[in-house]
Amino acid sequence: MKLDIAVLSGDGIGPEVTAQAIKALEAVAHSFDHSFIFKEALVGAIAIDKTGNPLPDKTLELCVNTDAVLFGAIGDPKYDNNPSAPVRPEQGLLKLRKELGLYANIRPVKAYSTLLDQSPLKREIIEGTDISIYRELTGGIYFGKKSLSEDGTVASDLCEYSKGEIERISHLAFKAAQKRRKKLTLVDKANVLESSRLWRKVVGEIAKQYKDVTLDFLFVDNAAMQMILNPSQFDVILTENMFGDIISDEASVIGGSIGLLASASVGDTCCMFEPIHGSYPQATGKGIANPIAAILSAAMLLEHFDLLGEAKAIRDAVEKALELNLTTPDLNNENPLTTEKVGDFIADYI
Amino acid sequence: MKLDIAVLSGDGIGPEVTAQAIKALEAVAHSFDHSFIFKEALVGAIAIDKTGNPLPDKTLELCVNTDAVLFGAIGDPKYDNNPSAPVRPEQGLLKLRKELGLYANIRPVKAYSTLLDQSPLKREIIEGTDISIYRELTGGIYFGKKSLSEDGTVASDLCEYSKGEIERISHLAFKAAQKRRKKLTLVDKANVLESSRLWRKVVGEIAKQYKDVTLDFLFVDNAAMQMILNPSQFDVILTENMFGDIISDEASVIGGSIGLLASASVGDTCCMFEPIHGSYPQATGKGIANPIAAILSAAMLLEHFDLLGEAKAIRDAVEKALELNLTTPDLNNENPLTTEKVGDFIADYI
Ligand SMILES: CC(C)[C@H](C(=O)O)[C@@H](O)C(=O)O
Ligand SMILES: CC(C)[C@H](C(=O)O)[C@@H](O)C(=O)O
Repeated sequence: MKLDIAVLSGDGIGPEVTAQAIKALEAVAHSFDHSFIFKEALVGAIAIDKTGNPLPDKTLELCVNTDAVLFGAIGDPKYDNNPSAPVRPEQGLLKLRKELGLYANIRPVKAYSTLLDQSPLKREIIEGTDISIYRELTGGIYFGKKSLSEDGTVASDLCEYSKGEIERISHLAFKAAQKRRKKLTLVDKANVLESSRLWRKVVGEIAKQYKDVTLDFLFVDNAAMQMILNPSQFDVILTENMFGDIISDEASVIGGSIGLLASASVGDTCCMFEPIHGSYPQATGKGIANPIAAILSAAMLLEHFDLLGEAKAIRDAVEKALELNLTTPDLNNENPLTTEKVGDFIADYI
Repeated sequence: MKLDIAVLSGDGIGPEVTAQAIKALEAVAHSFDHSFIFKEALVGAIAIDKTGNPLPDKTLELCVNTDAVLFGAIGDPKYDNNPSAPVRPEQGLLKLRKELGLYANIRPVKAYSTLLDQSPLKREIIEGTDISIYRELTGGIYFGKKSLSEDGTVASDLCEYSKGEIERISHLAFKAAQKRRKKLTLVDKANVLESSRLWRKVVGEIAKQYKDVTLDFLFVDNAAMQMILNPSQFDVILTENMFGDIISDEASVIGGSIGLLASASVGDTCCMFEPIHGSYPQATGKGIANPIAAILSAAMLLEHFDLLGEAKAIRDAVEKALELNLTTPDLNNENPLTTEKVGDFIADYI
């Protein structure tokens, strides 16, 4: 197979970890006789520094015309403490999601048995946890009308959802549940929000087309509790943009290894793969960043194109690295390897 | 002191636990020579059943004319699975908050040393946790304009905040921080929401009046992670209505003892005290509900009226019950006491 892949490595540790993901993909291309063409482009704080725009037109154009986007991370402390700066790195990411129509963000959260003791939660609580979170990514309060009164004393954000927006991601989530443990939990706040009541109605209707999947509903406040009390009860979680942001970040730490978590953002015509850890500026350039999340994002990319054997080769190599404890300092404080050496081991193993 | 107290015990285990809180208050009145007059009224599902209205006018009128409201819990499974029913118990609670102007919901979260092993989190993670959450309770997306298109395919909720709404709760939160460890964390999503940017601006301004308090900012997704990774970093958390709902429920389970958590909702002219556990319908009438959260809510009521010695008498009695393990089955599976017996012990000890 021939794939054109745009590489947006972005800020902080983004470039370091993305380089390892590319290495893994190159090893796969070599072993399985594929042709992957990588083209780099700017995004985030580095794009602001160089062009004044967190998502330069050239970058967007490249992404629109490739098969997939490999994304690193964005964010720089010089913008974080000034959220009302006129231009911010996040705007680049939000615009990219919207322009590419990446309406579904998929985040697997798994408790790796070799790492159970790294979790802040007790072993018996997280054992067996294996969740796939489907977060709506281009609607809701993130993209609704915002306003600020002229005198600056009243501000508002609109959370709006249409039936169509709910339907398209729901189908993806139900299909995923069919291939998994056949349980889907809709997280909402239907006891308070009109938009949540629409979610409940539409998802309830769609469920009739997926009779083998059990649907249940959970208020977001309760979900935030259940994620800690009993995370292994969840199979597929489906939710709107803001709740998905909160609940998936909460879920990401229960496995004890945020450096291992990958994500896919998909739409009808494009797809993007991204580690969830963010730009982690304090670690930049030190060779201590865990590349596994980026490498597993590459595996999700392969799965998206049905290259299942290829993805498995990456996953096996990652499991081997974990088993042999050939990992970065976050998971190994005795004999840690550098970001690059972990990437080398995984690429060689493939 | 003479206090008129409205008692809204509501649904599920509400009446059982509220009865124990009243017993504790009566013991205090007796020992410290106060006069507390209790007047009961209907709220929630039981009010719907009896009057068709989750907050009958008579109830509201009683609350407006008392010094404080002691609240039990609301909610009944027959409404939970039908969130679009025209009348729901939650509407009673939301209306009560709004009509009484209870704009600040205060929830203390403490890891009791005798109960550390009950937590789903590891002991070393939660040890020393002592947080006071200030959640805005009468604004934001809970009370913003809701709309549903005529054909039922587009729904929206508006999240709106004014400077004044932010200021009044912020002053309470800063004052609380001054009496505690002098740290205040504002939880928001200022990298995405206009309303959050207003929060950041207004709270930043107010901070100048409280120079002894250190203010920091945390995005809500990050807060959801930090609450699990390192809860003892927090002192006072200040946040808007919806984020407060989610983060405070998440926080409530880390101590391992949701049956111990009380809350106060205060405004300029009224105040209400409530255990946070909810109506827990499965436990109704079995004598297994933990009354301590309701009893500690009574202690918060006394503190609100500066009856500090009186509140301490309740807290000491509660600590004694925990120390002697004279508790309900959620905390004691060997020799559990009933709800009433725990209440008796605490009232006697006072
Ligand atoms: C950077 C920020 C705008 C973004 C979001 O809130 O969506 C991030 O938290 C994420 O989850 O990808
Ligand atoms: C019952 C519900 C409307 C309420 C809320 O969301 O405020 C509850 O969850 C709470 O936190 O008191």
